[in-house]
Amino acid sequence: MDTDRRLDQAMQLFWRKGYFATSVKDLAASAGLNRAAIYADFGSKKKLFEALLGRYRAQITAQRLAPLQVEDAGLAQIEQFFRQFRNLGARGENRLGCLMCLTSAEVSPHVPSVARIVTSYLDELGRLFRRALINARERGEIRPRTDAARMANYLTGAVLGLMALVRSPAPRAAITHYLDGVLSLLHNLQPT
Amino acid sequence: MDTDRRLDQAMQLFWRKGYFATSVKDLAASAGLNRAAIYADFGSKKKLFEALLGRYRAQITAQRLAPLQVEDAGLAQIEQFFRQFRNLGARGENRLGCLMCLTSAEVSPHVPSVARIVTSYLDELGRLFRRALINARERGEIRPRTDAARMANYLTGAVLGLMALVRSPAPRAAITHYLDGVLSLLHNLQPT
Repeated sequence: MDTDRRLDQAMQLFWRKGYFATSVKDLAASAGLNRAAIYADFGSKKKLFEALLGRYRAQITAQRLAPLQVEDAGLAQIEQFFRQFRNLGARGENRLGCLMCLTSAEVSPHVPSVARIVTSYLDELGRLFRRALINARERGEIRPRTDAARMANYLTGAVLGLMALVRSPAPRAAITHYLDGVLSLLHNLQPT
Repeated sequence: MDTDRRLDQAMQLFWRKGYFATSVKDLAASAGLNRAAIYADFGSKKKLFEALLGRYRAQITAQRLAPLQVEDAGLAQIEQFFRQFRNLGARGENRLGCLMCLTSAEVSPHVPSVARIVTSYLDELGRLFRRALINARERGEIRPRTDAARMANYLTGAVLGLMALVRSPAPRAAITHYLDGVLSLLHNLQPT
């Protein structure tokens, strides 16, 4: 395995098992990263994990956030962002949700350096929603009195909720119904 | 410390640190439950944790679910249920969220017996929301065409999202804005 592939495997392992349940031994067995390499290249399991959160953001969240990254994103792009998750967990697809959301609950209350990484991700998500809502408001896609900052905070929480639901043992249908709820809230922002 | 107090301490420890990061050593140090007692009384750390999830449900979630437990609960009780969390995380109050929600993401993908406990909790939550929505619909508090089962699934996901947000490093205001979003969705169910 080359380094890139080893790091991808390590990222997948943390995503599947979480930070605390993934041991240095697991990383050696599943990702071919032995203890000596982890300490020589990263300094600690924590530092490796932090590097992999950066990798996760570049590889996974960047792709998921793509609809919102467009400069003139509006209501349609917010809807498109949520709609892409409609099949998450379906047909044997993974139900791992989001490593960043899992880490938010699992690690960030205990490890300040990890909390900063999660904060930076949640800030980005909020900023993208806010920009799209402001664009939508300027173009009359949503009511002129919509509070973009508040709604952006709701939507950020809605992403955490969605990813928690995907990772939970709740039935598949719950994910669709949850998304329908979020989409109906967006729909209700439209001028009547 | 008597047994009840020791078990409460152990529950708090799991709630704060999560299942995997809590070692048998931590349980001895913080809760006065030594290894021999854990194995003699429960059989394993996992079995102790499962017993404490039962304790959490009896002590913590039962209290939080109280507004919905009323036989004739309706729209007002669903709102009351969400409103009680308005101050969660405020004024130095704990930002631990919900042990059951944390466990859903952290443990249930890996441990089937824990997944069953989480499923039973999510089912109860969904059932209570559904009953209150059906009552609300019968009494004309919400539109007659409201799909109670779908909306109950949305609200169950909204609880997971709320608790994820409370435990996240997101600013306090995000929790209030998130709750406002959920409450406005409920408001939009009312007949026009």
